[in-house]
Amino acid sequence: MTYRVGVVGGGQLARMMIAPAVELGIDIRVLAEAEGMSAALAATQVGDYRDADTVLAFAREVDVVTFDHEHVPQPVLHALLEAGVAVHPGPAALEFAQDKIRMRTRLAELGVPQPDWAAVSDADALQQFIDEHGGRAVVKTPRGGYDGKGVRVVEHGTEAADWFAALAEDARGGDLLVEELVDFRRELAQQIARSPRGEVATYPVVETVQRDGVCAEAVAPAPGAGARLADVAADMARDIANGLGVTGMLAVELFETTDDRLLVNELAMRPHNSGHWTQDGALTSQFEQHLRAVLDLPLGLTTPHAPWTVMVNILGGPAEGGLAERVPAAMSAHPAAKIHLYGKDPRPGRKVGHINAAGEELDEVAYEARAAAAHFD
Amino acid sequence: MTYRVGVVGGGQLARMMIAPAVELGIDIRVLAEAEGMSAALAATQVGDYRDADTVLAFAREVDVVTFDHEHVPQPVLHALLEAGVAVHPGPAALEFAQDKIRMRTRLAELGVPQPDWAAVSDADALQQFIDEHGGRAVVKTPRGGYDGKGVRVVEHGTEAADWFAALAEDARGGDLLVEELVDFRRELAQQIARSPRGEVATYPVVETVQRDGVCAEAVAPAPGAGARLADVAADMARDIANGLGVTGMLAVELFETTDDRLLVNELAMRPHNSGHWTQDGALTSQFEQHLRAVLDLPLGLTTPHAPWTVMVNILGGPAEGGLAERVPAAMSAHPAAKIHLYGKDPRPGRKVGHINAAGEELDEVAYEARAAAAHFD
Repeated sequence: MTYRVGVVGGGQLARMMIAPAVELGIDIRVLAEAEGMSAALAATQVGDYRDADTVLAFAREVDVVTFDHEHVPQPVLHALLEAGVAVHPGPAALEFAQDKIRMRTRLAELGVPQPDWAAVSDADALQQFIDEHGGRAVVKTPRGGYDGKGVRVVEHGTEAADWFAALAEDARGGDLLVEELVDFRRELAQQIARSPRGEVATYPVVETVQRDGVCAEAVAPAPGAGARLADVAADMARDIANGLGVTGMLAVELFETTDDRLLVNELAMRPHNSGHWTQDGALTSQFEQHLRAVLDLPLGLTTPHAPWTVMVNILGGPAEGGLAERVPAAMSAHPAAKIHLYGKDPRPGRKVGHINAAGEELDEVAYEARAAAAHFD
Repeated sequence: MTYRVGVVGGGQLARMMIAPAVELGIDIRVLAEAEGMSAALAATQVGDYRDADTVLAFAREVDVVTFDHEHVPQPVLHALLEAGVAVHPGPAALEFAQDKIRMRTRLAELGVPQPDWAAVSDADALQQFIDEHGGRAVVKTPRGGYDGKGVRVVEHGTEAADWFAALAEDARGGDLLVEELVDFRRELAQQIARSPRGEVATYPVVETVQRDGVCAEAVAPAPGAGARLADVAADMARDIANGLGVTGMLAVELFETTDDRLLVNELAMRPHNSGHWTQDGALTSQFEQHLRAVLDLPLGLTTPHAPWTVMVNILGGPAEGGLAERVPAAMSAHPAAKIHLYGKDPRPGRKVGHINAAGEELDEVAYEARAAAAHFD
C-alpha cells in the first residue's frame, strides 16, 4: 500500500507539494492544464479540469483528490463524490471559496466578524451601499477573482456597469458583492489545517504586505501580535474551518482595523502564499500539512524553527534573461536565504518564486529576504 | 536557461535530491537501474550505468552528471569527460572511493591519520600482518563493498582464501586490503561539500552508531565534541577533499580511538547516511548542498536549526504489511518526528527510510527519533 494523492492543477502550489510527498513516501500525481507547468515533474496527465470525464479518469488512480486552485466546477466535484472518490476540500466547503457572496452569508450565520457587505443586483443598490458607507466601497465579482482581479474600489454605482452587464449575460445570473472600505492598520493571515476526522492545527498568525493586490511579503509571526491577538485569529480560523467543513489547508486573510478588530477579508482553501514561510520556518510546512490533512493522517507540529521568518515574493522576475542566471549572485551574497523557484518564465507581475529567511532579529531577517529577492528583479 | 543535473543511479540518495532540486528550480533527471526505483519520479531513462553509450546518451540532456553511488566504471567516466561532459565528482576523485587500497595509499601520501594497513596478495602476507597486529585484523575487498559487505574480521590468513581466489580470476588482479582492528571509543562522521571552484563547507561532526556494519543512528553534533575535536575533524575532511579533488559531498567516516586520535575509516563521495540529519536539522541539507556543489553554485550555510538532531534509520521495515500502514500511528505518537520513506518494499536489513528529530535536549530528541522509528519495525 502506498498513499496516493491526486492534485488537480499544475501550478506552483502543486509543485511545492512534491517535496514533502517524496519525503513521506506519498505517491503524488498531478492533472496539469498543459505541458511544462510548474508541477510538471509529477504530472501524470494533461487535461481540462472543467471536464468531468477527464477528472474522473485522473481520480481513478489516486486515494484522494485535492487542488492547486479553487476553480474546479461544482458539477465536476459532485461527479467525483458520486463515483466514490475522496475529495478534500469537498464541494460543500469549496462552494464558499468559489462564491464570495455565499462565503459572506455563511460567515454571517457563524457570527464571524467581517466588513459590512451586501449583495447588489444593480447600480442603484450599489450606490445606496456606497452612500451608507462614506462615499466609497469595494465591489467584487463573486466568482473567478484572485490576486486582486475582480476587485474594484468605486465611488459611484455606475462604475461596475460592465460587471452587472456580464452577470446579466451569465446563465447563473446573480449579484455583485459590495463591501465597506475597511480602515485597517495592516493585513494578517491565519493558516489552519483541518482533517476529515476534524483534527485541526493552527500556525502562528502572520502579517502580509500586499502590492497591487498581490501578496508581496509575509512576516511570521505578525510583529507585535500578543497572545490575545494570536488567540483571536486562531479561534476565528477554527470556527471557519469547522463551520464551513474545510479539509486541508485554509488561509484566512484578515484586516486588523485601526480600532483593533479582526475582520475576515478572504478565504483560500489550499496552501496559500501567506504560508510559504512554513517551508523553511516551521517543523511542518503547509504543503506537508495539506497532504497529511487530505489523507486524514495525524497533523504535524507547527512549531517555528526561529523567532522570525520572512517570506518575500519574486514577482515578475528579470526583464532580461532568466531566473537561473541570477541564482549564483543571490546565493553568494545571501547564504542564509532559502531560494524557491517555480520553474516559470519571467513575466511582469507573475509570481515566479519566493525567498524565505529565518533568524533571531526581525530587521536582519527581513533585510536578508528582501535583498536576496531583489537579485531576481 | 535552467540548471540541469543528471544523477546516475535511482536509489534513495537520488530520490532525496529531488526535493531540493524542485525548490531551487533545478531540472533533475535520473538514470535508473530499473523501473520503480526510489527515485522513479525523476527517472527520465532506465539503463545500465556500466554501458558508456547509455550514460553518454543520458548525459547529453544535462549540464552536469553526478551519482547516487560510486560504482560507475572508470572507462565510462572517462568517456563522459572525453565527450565534454561535466562530471562531479570526477573519475580521478572517484577512483579513491572505488578502490580502498588506492584510497589508503593516497591518504598516507597526504599524511592523514589512518589505521595501520597493508595491501596483501596472499594468505602468508595476511598472516604476517595479523601476527604483527595482535592476532586479529580487518580484511576488505578493495572494490565493490558497501554497508559492511566485503569486510571481514579475521584471525588467520586462510580466512580470506575465497577472496584471494576471486581476485586471481579477476582480470584486474590486485591485492586485498588489510587493516589493524582499531581500538575505538566510537565512530564519527564528518561531512564536507567542495565545489569545482574549490569552495568548501563543513557540517558539524556527528557520532554514528553502526549495527551489523550498517549505519543505524547519527547524532549531530557528536556528544561531547569540543571545539578541538570539531576542528580536527573538519580540517581532516578539508585536507582530504582538497587532496583528492573531491567535488560534491564527501563523508569522512572516522574512528575516535580510546587514546583520543581520529583515524579515517572510510570515504563516501556523495550524500551519505550519516548526513541525513541535515534534511531537518541544518539550514542547507546535504542533498541541496550536493546539487549546489556539483553545479559550482555558491555553497549554503550549514547552521543547525537546533542544539541536537538525531537520525534513526528504518532498517528492514515491518515483517508484515507495508511501511505506509505504520505511518498514522507513528505520526500520532511522535508529532515532532520527521518521517522519510524511500518508496522501497520492506526486506530484512534493507534501508527503507529514516526518522529525524531535533530539539534542545538530546535525551528527548533521541527518544523521539528511536520511538518513531520503532513504529516501522
